[in-house]
Amino acid sequence: MDGRPVVPSTSRLRPLGLAEVEITGGFWGRRQQVNSEATIRHCHDWMERLGWVGNFRAAAEGRLPEDRHGVVFTDSDVYKLMEAAAWEVGRSGSTEAEGRFADLTAIIAPVQEDDGYLNTVFGRPGQPDRYSDLEWGHELYCYGHMLQAAVARFRTGRADEFLEVARRAADHVCDVFADGRIERVGGHPEIELGLVELARVTGEERYLHQASLFIDRRGHQTLADIHWGRSYFQDDVPVRDQVAFTGHSVRALYLAASAVDVAVETGDERLLEAIIGQWERTVTRRTYLTGGMGSHHDGEKFGEDFVLPPDRAYSETCAGIASVMLSWRLLLATGETRFADLAERTLFNVVATSPAPDGRAFFYANPLHQRVPGVVPSPDFVSNRAASSLREPWFAVSCCPTNVARTFASLAAYLATTDDSGLQIHQYADSRISTTIGDGRRVSVDVGTAYPAEGRISVRVSETDGSPWALTLRVPHWSSESWLVVGGERKKVGPGQVVVERSFAVDDVVELELDMTPRWTWPDPRIDSVRGCVAVERGPLVLCVESVELPGEQSVETFRVDPGSDLVERDGVVSVGGTLVAFEDRPWPVPGLVLARNSDVVISLTPYHDWANRGPSTMRVWIPAATMEVDNQEER
Amino acid sequence: MDGRPVVPSTSRLRPLGLAEVEITGGFWGRRQQVNSEATIRHCHDWMERLGWVGNFRAAAEGRLPEDRHGVVFTDSDVYKLMEAAAWEVGRSGSTEAEGRFADLTAIIAPVQEDDGYLNTVFGRPGQPDRYSDLEWGHELYCYGHMLQAAVARFRTGRADEFLEVARRAADHVCDVFADGRIERVGGHPEIELGLVELARVTGEERYLHQASLFIDRRGHQTLADIHWGRSYFQDDVPVRDQVAFTGHSVRALYLAASAVDVAVETGDERLLEAIIGQWERTVTRRTYLTGGMGSHHDGEKFGEDFVLPPDRAYSETCAGIASVMLSWRLLLATGETRFADLAERTLFNVVATSPAPDGRAFFYANPLHQRVPGVVPSPDFVSNRAASSLREPWFAVSCCPTNVARTFASLAAYLATTDDSGLQIHQYADSRISTTIGDGRRVSVDVGTAYPAEGRISVRVSETDGSPWALTLRVPHWSSESWLVVGGERKKVGPGQVVVERSFAVDDVVELELDMTPRWTWPDPRIDSVRGCVAVERGPLVLCVESVELPGEQSVETFRVDPGSDLVERDGVVSVGGTLVAFEDRPWPVPGLVLARNSDVVISLTPYHDWANRGPSTMRVWIPAATMEVDNQEER
Repeated sequence: MDGRPVVPSTSRLRPLGLAEVEITGGFWGRRQQVNSEATIRHCHDWMERLGWVGNFRAAAEGRLPEDRHGVVFTDSDVYKLMEAAAWEVGRSGSTEAEGRFADLTAIIAPVQEDDGYLNTVFGRPGQPDRYSDLEWGHELYCYGHMLQAAVARFRTGRADEFLEVARRAADHVCDVFADGRIERVGGHPEIELGLVELARVTGEERYLHQASLFIDRRGHQTLADIHWGRSYFQDDVPVRDQVAFTGHSVRALYLAASAVDVAVETGDERLLEAIIGQWERTVTRRTYLTGGMGSHHDGEKFGEDFVLPPDRAYSETCAGIASVMLSWRLLLATGETRFADLAERTLFNVVATSPAPDGRAFFYANPLHQRVPGVVPSPDFVSNRAASSLREPWFAVSCCPTNVARTFASLAAYLATTDDSGLQIHQYADSRISTTIGDGRRVSVDVGTAYPAEGRISVRVSETDGSPWALTLRVPHWSSESWLVVGGERKKVGPGQVVVERSFAVDDVVELELDMTPRWTWPDPRIDSVRGCVAVERGPLVLCVESVELPGEQSVETFRVDPGSDLVERDGVVSVGGTLVAFEDRPWPVPGLVLARNSDVVISLTPYHDWANRGPSTMRVWIPAATMEVDNQEER
Repeated sequence: MDGRPVVPSTSRLRPLGLAEVEITGGFWGRRQQVNSEATIRHCHDWMERLGWVGNFRAAAEGRLPEDRHGVVFTDSDVYKLMEAAAWEVGRSGSTEAEGRFADLTAIIAPVQEDDGYLNTVFGRPGQPDRYSDLEWGHELYCYGHMLQAAVARFRTGRADEFLEVARRAADHVCDVFADGRIERVGGHPEIELGLVELARVTGEERYLHQASLFIDRRGHQTLADIHWGRSYFQDDVPVRDQVAFTGHSVRALYLAASAVDVAVETGDERLLEAIIGQWERTVTRRTYLTGGMGSHHDGEKFGEDFVLPPDRAYSETCAGIASVMLSWRLLLATGETRFADLAERTLFNVVATSPAPDGRAFFYANPLHQRVPGVVPSPDFVSNRAASSLREPWFAVSCCPTNVARTFASLAAYLATTDDSGLQIHQYADSRISTTIGDGRRVSVDVGTAYPAEGRISVRVSETDGSPWALTLRVPHWSSESWLVVGGERKKVGPGQVVVERSFAVDDVVELELDMTPRWTWPDPRIDSVRGCVAVERGPLVLCVESVELPGEQSVETFRVDPGSDLVERDGVVSVGGTLVAFEDRPWPVPGLVLARNSDVVISLTPYHDWANRGPSTMRVWIPAATMEVDNQEER
């Protein structure tokens, strides 16, 4: 029971679990600590306070539907909290998390009905019938998270009552949604992920078959044609026939991730190829510089190709997490580093952006441009979902905080893999990896790095049997000049990956030096909303200009960057040269507007993941280039 | 009974009615004819087919709620159809329209309850209670349209039964929503417009007082805090304290128009100033080049300042009509031409854009950029509201077609005004104006023009008493060189207005020559989504590039315009020079993208109001400028 979230029965690379990889500090270590000490409890406290845990108690005590609280899918967030607690037990052995999981199991298990059905919203007198609202009812979605929590529990060594709850629920779903029974799908994909993983845990083929059925049924219009159309829940076009991810972004990405699972388990190469094609198209045409996905608030959905407005970016935190889940599955299936590249970009610039440093407030949406400073939310404020421009303590639709919690608790499992030849490190963090390769040979390494503040990654071999094996390190695409140092020898390496194969000895050190020189990034000319703008990146981090760094904290809208200026980095802080401009409104309908150069300035940039941590501010990732715009004005 | 939609008891300019102004042909004459011959019937047929008229029959026959069809506010569209029919009777004396109004009155009047309440959704056994859902129930909104229909009927000379229906409903509203009773407002402003105009028609002060109460109450959070926040229905901030129009755009603009009505009737200068300030801010910062208002599909609402994405422009047809209604009221109140300037821009580029040439299909949303060709809707297709990118025959939420119908039928009333000194012509169309000025002197003129195809407007005096009076002509802001020709004398005039005061004789001709040279329009540099782009306008028309004009009908995304090229106009068609470019995708994460110049081309532009009339196409109003972008690429 080694704590692996995803365990394909066959794959190009083999995942490692929490028992094999430990994050020991640094950027992600701090976040894991905050997650353990604050976020998990914060989520539990809010769900008690708002009665979401209480819904299960009320169910057991016959007080439903009167005492039902929260939106229709709150059960799922309790399950995601349980999943986080399970991984946290696996990660740190936390007794608090252990108690949390046991307590919630004791509350939830009695609610399960004799046939396995378990939900606090449907089926009781005064409630709508079971499965009477597959579009919006979220029953199958809730099961999916229940199953994932049970899998996490099992994989972290506790095959307790909750696994049985999950099995009974899964059996029930397989009964009710079998061919010849309800031949439809749920409005929000997620059950598929849970079913495949539970099949992998239990060996029960039936669960895999049901997941496969759900994948195949989707796109055949078994759901109603809602306001946003059936594309909202990917029910307009069969999964295999999509060109790019479309519709509600979290739905689309959970679906794609589960389609990879099904493809891998059933050997369905065509399905795998289809998802990879959709991933390619989506990453090149429908993805923000941050890795964020989902352009539209309206329907929380993917836009058409190149519709990527930074100010209206929805880029939901959950979509970022779902994208990492998908990338991880594709990396395991193919071994291709581009999937790890996207996962890194998304982890540092979407997932890490969501939680506040204290782990008690969250971004739901992750726009790349904030025009108007936000209003500090009260600690008791429950936002609808993406209302404010500051991190908020909780949401009526609160999928994101629990998703962050489960992801951070299990993050170590996404750093490295093995295959017969050796060990592959995909994500760089202070960490200890101890596993077996090939036919059972023990290999351990310690990774030391100040990444992403610095570009040097040092891998020290701490256990090896002396026979040769291969250490593979990802060389991120953004590093324009990368060096490998092995045994005193320093050689330049290109992007992709570098393989060091030899008979390692204990204390051998392999060093990778990545180029952390800050760099200008020009947008694809097909994206209208950032034409004439340029962004700055350093290493895996997207940077932004934030009003708190401007003279007098004036709006970022007054700043024009000079892309001919030098990007200067000092102590990890990057600054850029530019100009402050002044605008003069003329009364409508007089055309034209005076744009006057004001004063040349040098501005320190903020890592995007850290914006809005110094109070309300305005912010831009894509900064208008002064040269182009002033020319434009002069042309008039 | 002279057919005036808006009759302030005091105003800077006096409106004229359908009895005084007749559109005799040309651009708007054709549209009035299509409206009369096709659109009004089309609306009626659809509302019969979908059971929206039948809802009233079902109510009278006790078949509600079982036989209720359509969304909650379909009653209002039947009233808007009645208003259109009333104006059409006033405009053309149409017996068909006369019969239509009478038939609908006979169907609706029996549904009114003893206390004046009339609605097909609320209050019956099995239906929700009256006024139990002020946020979404639309009862007051429906009354507003009922009252406007009754006013139109009265003002076109038929003080028949429907006016009594409206009076009883208004009395009921004044009873139920008096201070001390339900001290709240309706979720969708509109009743206020109806109440003020009914007060003007009947002299009943109580209706004006109730409208004033509704204006004062709004913004004091008497409505629930919904998903989009109370700003959605302008209930977050009092009307007087708003900075710019905000929230749902049609709601905001109906509210502002009625606030002007109340301000004028009550002599509330502060309220009038507040609305003018909001109008200024909105027009300079929250309005599309077309005059379109409302940037967001999500919540159908205004964006923040300068958030004006062309591809995601909602720019609802009804918001354009509401904006014209507001501009008209502000023009009457102040006499300032800028309001007529905006009305012209909006009429030609939003309102005229909505209906198909045959008057049987409509745009609901009016985006300024279409990336993907639409799908031709079947004639039986009922769209939700803004789903497709082609004009559609009908909508589940079908406010726009009936709004177009009532606006076109009454359009002549928005062309001209009088004051003590003479006659003011604000909008140019082939027309005949015959009215009285000052203390009852008869004045008639014939306006002849090929506007907007050509810029010459000829005003011939056909009736005058020989004593001096002033003819005032608006000189649109976009005309960079305008000439006035009077009695053989030709003199240059600036933008704003020109006044010709003299003792006119019959057959005297005053000519205005506007500069119709096509012109480049650069965007405000604070609008991100069109940075580096330029638009082309000619006269009052916004032009666009449409794929049907490109070689091989390739996507407009391949076209880069050369803003240094000459804009050539021939027979009213404007063409521009530019370049076709080719894009080469590179696999992610390889940065950069090859943008190769392809071939120089000259492309004919389409008037925006005429786009998508030649089948599915892609379209851009704002065209990327080749020079800037290729420079940008070379910098990399």
